[in-house]
Amino acid sequence: MTRTPHAAPGIRFDIERDRRIGLPEAVFSEGKSEEALLALFTRFANPDEKPILFTRVALERFAALPEDLRAAYDYDPLSRTAWAKTCPKHATGCAAVVSAGTADAFVTREAARTLEYLGYEVRLFEDCGVAGLWRIQAAIAEINACDVVIVAAGLDAALASVLGGLTDRPLFAVPTSVGYGIAEGGRTALSSMLASCAPGVAVMNIDNGYGAACAAARVLRLLNAS
Amino acid sequence: MTRTPHAAPGIRFDIERDRRIGLPEAVFSEGKSEEALLALFTRFANPDEKPILFTRVALERFAALPEDLRAAYDYDPLSRTAWAKTCPKHATGCAAVVSAGTADAFVTREAARTLEYLGYEVRLFEDCGVAGLWRIQAAIAEINACDVVIVAAGLDAALASVLGGLTDRPLFAVPTSVGYGIAEGGRTALSSMLASCAPGVAVMNIDNGYGAACAAARVLRLLNAS
Amino acid sequence: MTRTPHAAPGIRFDIERDRRIGLPEAVFSEGKSEEALLALFTRFANPDEKPILFTRVALERFAALPEDLRAAYDYDPLSRTAWAKTCPKHATGCAAVVSAGTADAFVTREAARTLEYLGYEVRLFEDCGVAGLWRIQAAIAEINACDVVIVAAGLDAALASVLGGLTDRPLFAVPTSVGYGIAEGGRTALSSMLASCAPGVAVMNIDNGYGAACAAARVLRLLNAS
Amino acid sequence: MTRTPHAAPGIRFDIERDRRIGLPEAVFSEGKSEEALLALFTRFANPDEKPILFTRVALERFAALPEDLRAAYDYDPLSRTAWAKTCPKHATGCAAVVSAGTADAFVTREAARTLEYLGYEVRLFEDCGVAGLWRIQAAIAEINACDVVIVAAGLDAALASVLGGLTDRPLFAVPTSVGYGIAEGGRTALSSMLASCAPGVAVMNIDNGYGAACAAARVLRLLNAS
Amino acid sequence: MTRTPHAAPGIRFDIERDRRIGLPEAVFSEGKSEEALLALFTRFANPDEKPILFTRVALERFAALPEDLRAAYDYDPLSRTAWAKTCPKHATGCAAVVSAGTADAFVTREAARTLEYLGYEVRLFEDCGVAGLWRIQAAIAEINACDVVIVAAGLDAALASVLGGLTDRPLFAVPTSVGYGIAEGGRTALSSMLASCAPGVAVMNIDNGYGAACAAARVLRLLNAS
Amino acid sequence: MTRTPHAAPGIRFDIERDRRIGLPEAVFSEGKSEEALLALFTRFANPDEKPILFTRVALERFAALPEDLRAAYDYDPLSRTAWAKTCPKHATGCAAVVSAGTADAFVTREAARTLEYLGYEVRLFEDCGVAGLWRIQAAIAEINACDVVIVAAGLDAALASVLGGLTDRPLFAVPTSVGYGIAEGGRTALSSMLASCAPGVAVMNIDNGYGAACAAARVLRLLNAS
Amino acid sequence: MTRTPHAAPGIRFDIERDRRIGLPEAVFSEGKSEEALLALFTRFANPDEKPILFTRVALERFAALPEDLRAAYDYDPLSRTAWAKTCPKHATGCAAVVSAGTADAFVTREAARTLEYLGYEVRLFEDCGVAGLWRIQAAIAEINACDVVIVAAGLDAALASVLGGLTDRPLFAVPTSVGYGIAEGGRTALSSMLASCAPGVAVMNIDNGYGAACAAARVLRLLNAS
Amino acid sequence: MTRTPHAAPGIRFDIERDRRIGLPEAVFSEGKSEEALLALFTRFANPDEKPILFTRVALERFAALPEDLRAAYDYDPLSRTAWAKTCPKHATGCAAVVSAGTADAFVTREAARTLEYLGYEVRLFEDCGVAGLWRIQAAIAEINACDVVIVAAGLDAALASVLGGLTDRPLFAVPTSVGYGIAEGGRTALSSMLASCAPGVAVMNIDNGYGAACAAARVLRLLNAS
Repeated sequence: MTRTPHAAPGIRFDIERDRRIGLPEAVFSEGKSEEALLALFTRFANPDEKPILFTRVALERFAALPEDLRAAYDYDPLSRTAWAKTCPKHATGCAAVVSAGTADAFVTREAARTLEYLGYEVRLFEDCGVAGLWRIQAAIAEINACDVVIVAAGLDAALASVLGGLTDRPLFAVPTSVGYGIAEGGRTALSSMLASCAPGVAVMNIDNGYGAACAAARVLRLLNAS
Repeated sequence: MTRTPHAAPGIRFDIERDRRIGLPEAVFSEGKSEEALLALFTRFANPDEKPILFTRVALERFAALPEDLRAAYDYDPLSRTAWAKTCPKHATGCAAVVSAGTADAFVTREAARTLEYLGYEVRLFEDCGVAGLWRIQAAIAEINACDVVIVAAGLDAALASVLGGLTDRPLFAVPTSVGYGIAEGGRTALSSMLASCAPGVAVMNIDNGYGAACAAARVLRLLNAS
Repeated sequence: MTRTPHAAPGIRFDIERDRRIGLPEAVFSEGKSEEALLALFTRFANPDEKPILFTRVALERFAALPEDLRAAYDYDPLSRTAWAKTCPKHATGCAAVVSAGTADAFVTREAARTLEYLGYEVRLFEDCGVAGLWRIQAAIAEINACDVVIVAAGLDAALASVLGGLTDRPLFAVPTSVGYGIAEGGRTALSSMLASCAPGVAVMNIDNGYGAACAAARVLRLLNAS
Repeated sequence: MTRTPHAAPGIRFDIERDRRIGLPEAVFSEGKSEEALLALFTRFANPDEKPILFTRVALERFAALPEDLRAAYDYDPLSRTAWAKTCPKHATGCAAVVSAGTADAFVTREAARTLEYLGYEVRLFEDCGVAGLWRIQAAIAEINACDVVIVAAGLDAALASVLGGLTDRPLFAVPTSVGYGIAEGGRTALSSMLASCAPGVAVMNIDNGYGAACAAARVLRLLNAS
Repeated sequence: MTRTPHAAPGIRFDIERDRRIGLPEAVFSEGKSEEALLALFTRFANPDEKPILFTRVALERFAALPEDLRAAYDYDPLSRTAWAKTCPKHATGCAAVVSAGTADAFVTREAARTLEYLGYEVRLFEDCGVAGLWRIQAAIAEINACDVVIVAAGLDAALASVLGGLTDRPLFAVPTSVGYGIAEGGRTALSSMLASCAPGVAVMNIDNGYGAACAAARVLRLLNAS
Repeated sequence: MTRTPHAAPGIRFDIERDRRIGLPEAVFSEGKSEEALLALFTRFANPDEKPILFTRVALERFAALPEDLRAAYDYDPLSRTAWAKTCPKHATGCAAVVSAGTADAFVTREAARTLEYLGYEVRLFEDCGVAGLWRIQAAIAEINACDVVIVAAGLDAALASVLGGLTDRPLFAVPTSVGYGIAEGGRTALSSMLASCAPGVAVMNIDNGYGAACAAARVLRLLNAS
Repeated sequence: MTRTPHAAPGIRFDIERDRRIGLPEAVFSEGKSEEALLALFTRFANPDEKPILFTRVALERFAALPEDLRAAYDYDPLSRTAWAKTCPKHATGCAAVVSAGTADAFVTREAARTLEYLGYEVRLFEDCGVAGLWRIQAAIAEINACDVVIVAAGLDAALASVLGGLTDRPLFAVPTSVGYGIAEGGRTALSSMLASCAPGVAVMNIDNGYGAACAAARVLRLLNAS
Repeated sequence: MTRTPHAAPGIRFDIERDRRIGLPEAVFSEGKSEEALLALFTRFANPDEKPILFTRVALERFAALPEDLRAAYDYDPLSRTAWAKTCPKHATGCAAVVSAGTADAFVTREAARTLEYLGYEVRLFEDCGVAGLWRIQAAIAEINACDVVIVAAGLDAALASVLGGLTDRPLFAVPTSVGYGIAEGGRTALSSMLASCAPGVAVMNIDNGYGAACAAARVLRLLNAS
């Protein structure tokens, strides 16, 4: 006899989060069961529900949803994010999202899409790795025209320090799991960013584009409030 | 010529374990061969055998058993536990099982099901992570009405310290492998729980819901004896 | 000009801790300044103050206190603990504190002294390492006559598993930093205890005899309450 | 024959740093020779020089300077910082610096003193560890009245997540090397903060109070500019 | 155009190894291409070739060989070893192979089969983990009747120390990758065995049953020579 | 609705790299999308494009390309490298590529193919592991007839030190991920090579045959220039 | 008041160890108090006591003993070993102790002195590191004339593999903490020895010359018995 | 009785090293006894001896030598190197030694002094860290006028990648132990350099300026030969 468990895990939505910390709760999809994910996608397809962001939705999992449900969502397979509607646009605030290589795109796009969902303007600057230093130098003026900067890099993550010495903006660095050997999994990039020789570089968990966007949004929100 | 090995690995059941340490031996199913698992499930489906708990029985492995054997067992796919019958109920003793998020459910349910099998009362308090502090505060009075507390959490496992400062009950903390990047595999949660700033938080191996239940049962047994 | 800092760090004593979790706050002396330590020793030498436990008080630091202050305290250099008075004795509850070797004594004594301070009976069983298995076998009956068991061991910490298979009592294992090479600092003992093949062994941070005593006291308190 | 080396290491001051990134270069004193440190203290005691911040100046090293030089500096032994004069005060911008325990003061004070040197207002909230949850709850309203928040914690660093769920301000978390056993050196606190269950918590290197202040200053500078 | 590489990797068989170190070269099959494995199995099926041992031959890989080739080999799927013929039997020398649990059988059997191939007598003692101490105590007299002892254990590997205190025989300990959480992959068992509190326990790489057999054979060979 | 992302990740080719550092940019294929890879293979099949090297092209990925595109490339599945045309041959310069075992071939071949692509002569010396010391001794005279030496080894990588003591040539050591247990993933080989007791052994990332070839090419280029 | 602790740690000498495992108990001096060490040295200076070996006796600690006690002992500062009398000489059995460099001498001498104390013949072969391969080649014939071999090496420990391919004797490898950077503390040497490409190399804990001697003695004892 | 050990450790100088690998043996002074160091300094002060380099000679240890011996040596306390005479100058070959900060000087100077001892020209470029990118850009033309480049950096070691993208010279990167927190000891710099996004950057052990000089000398020697 295959029993169902005592009950489905009891989700306690943190509905007041937005009011407390200025960021609505999001749904982290990895590790959720098929049933739970279906229920959540169904619930938030309802136009009466407030906007919600789904993160880490693998393409196979999104593709397994009923077609009408999929149609209700704006889904991006590279960033693995989905939403039925976004938060209202803010009056001001622009974030630059910079990457060292195209392989970091799954992280840079998660950050960019999260900021878009939260109602902020985003500009992407990809493939600016320091092995060809002219790339970041060509982009720096445009980057400095934004209010906050997110930088994603794997391998040795040297871009974070170089960028930290070229911008006066709040700078959030996201190590990516891109690399092999000693760099595999992103620990080298993480340590490198934490040990940055440029002052005031703040660091997020590996591949945490969502978190970097939230950190940037905390700053942008302050700008809107001030 | 494909030989069978010298002989099947010689299992030496520790039949006296219950008498020595108050906990019957259990069958850890991972790493056991199909043949060994089938033999064990067949043996303990016999009503004349004493109760036994199977842990870490993946759904695919349970589903591969003959239908009549499956019918003889109470199997829960989330906790991956199975039994044909439980131990006798104890006169007293209630355990609270608390989790930070629904993704920890495979551990909290293993702990809960093990305690149920051992004959103790269990109450579940799930999704109490501290990012929304009101959740644990709403549950704390009910938790403190139990005799012992198990807390399961992944990521930074901050719930263990918060709970350790809110309850006077014996508290067993189980780090879970829930998380990514630096948290992947549960080492961060494990270290965090061991370094808890609350006094007297005792820690189990990563994902070891079964062990936490056994530790709790050692306490509850003492209550029944006293 | 050598300035004093803005102000002495603002200590916020958690005076209600005892009421909340059944354990009074203790003073962890490492990392405290000379001035702070002197102030605290002076304050709690006052007979009108409630009892407080000082932990990790190195002999040099205690010896540096004024003689009359030293006279007011019961100080033990091996466990590095001090108190001016203890908590009231409890009606019931006895803890066994077991160690693998005499080099673990700084931890076993910290556990034993903490329990003595908290008002519980303690029995010491030292130098019971499994390389001479007869030692733990000679002591096991007396150990099992206690209500809870604390085991401290360094190196490979094999004693925790052996003891876990010989007692039905709640068992709190403290890895010690005793050892060299791969065992240096206690990580090997910690991992070994967490991976114990005996069920229900709960583990504390390395050298945390104080914490093990608190975990044991959470159980003993329950016995007194029941 | 004891030779002097080829030449003293050739310092290339990054004099334009302030213009590029809004933060003047600072002098990290650890690892600098006695001669180099003396030369730098002498140079920046000159009233014609621009303000400079010396960090990680151990008390013994400051005490070894000539008395007239010491008199020219505002030196704080707890934070190990020194300056001859500060940067001009900014029109707006206040930072909250929160700590889990008084042992974290060497980090919180480094952050606070750096912000003071940079011309920003600072408020200190110390000893707010979550084992006594009322402490952070008592302080949260005042914390949220500041523009940015820095949180310093060692051990399991659970305060970062709890605070992350209680404030909408940009939040920079500094793990401290406070703790022993598994927590020794600050790796556990670092991992815990990176894995925070609260969104948008950005993390600095272990004990890097200076860096957290710079990250906060990048935000405050933006507020002054907007 | 898919090119073949410059040439197949140039194997240089160490044909004189047996003469130099008393152990013939063996074929480690993991990481070898299908073609290379087929060629080697074909070559050593030839009765004119000297005996060779294949290790780490996964069942799928053996099953993929032509039927007549499979028929020429004695293959054991649990130990993943194969041979067409064994080395001559030695006049004397018996090895005990002891394990903590049945999950270690893939290692104990690799050790036992290697010794059988090398011409030595082997006795198996499985499932002797110390959580039920009577198991090793029941077997110890028979174990001590052998000349050398191999012990395989995962998790906390406490059996190595207990056995090291009960036998005067040369003792080779093999940590196994059996376990989860902190024990996953065998590092905990490895460290534990290296830190054994029993004197003279020598340790092999994780899961290296073959190496333990070779180490034992170096001793047994000496006995035959003396 | 499954959206395409904002845009394909914006590749910024570092076309001037060759002029700056003497090495043309290469395409690291892992982590690139199917579309990106197809586009790049199509572009560089054009005879008007300059030569480009594709690395880490798994056989499945190459096989998935259209047949006419595959026909335009020289692809080697063992080294996972592909090119449509090579760089011009250099007048002088020969590299020896030495390996410890045939399992290292995926790395040695990547190094050899990269050097061939860059226009240098290469000689392969495989299966020279030190367990049979005669193998490297038989090859050493021929190795020393080359200008630079690359050595690839997994496990304990002892060959790097032995070779470092037998050649006066620039020596680049590549640890490989070959091995199991403590050697799994190549960290042991990496550490061993970095700690080599032979002077002047320079080390690359794990499995980085491409990088070793580039390091050797930097030397060979100098020889052609001098 | 400075109290003496409850009692001196209760030493339980494992007096039957010799009978059980063929090796008498030894006194590991590190971490023992001055009082305990003095008591033990006094006791075993008595000619009626059986022989005992003191290990890890730092020169300062030995020098602090009373002069008449020092006169009763054979103390060697390099190996940090002391004894008042040795065990009886055995009829047969010779061990070779080989090292890579002179910096390993504190380990090789501990092994050699332990074997001398146990009554076995020892031959030393020092400074045989493989960067100058002729050194081990010059010594190998004499090494192979012994019954068992101990090899001590730090850094990359390549000597263990080279020696493992040149001798048919039981081979016990001791990693030493000699080295800096990645080799500091001996982990690299330890991993390298465990991953040795030569079959049957058994490994001891870092710097454990005493353990290697015990492992060798287990073999030599067997030779005397056979 | 304090015995001298069996004999002083038997040094076997590798006198033929220069002939085999083009680099004379050097004396690594750390871990050598006072007596051994005195003997070696005495021997090589003899004008008839060939030149020898002493590395890692701490100032205290050099200062403890007799004055006349000190007078015979060229000693540099920053690099901790000493020689009585240098090798003959080479006809050609110049090395650039670049550092990120002045705190790296103990490593850059060890590299520079070793090259000077070996008879090569050296140019120093210190304090070129990328937080102020103009520093490396100002120096790059002069760096590229040398034949080989050594780069030393601690913290995140981002300079290695930036430099790797700006020079076509053989490039040897030395991570330094400069930094704190996650960067302490140099592991972060080491990993970062190994994972460099610039092709062909070869890496040495942490703080191994001597090794980098040897690697560079292997290249420069080739230039002199060609």
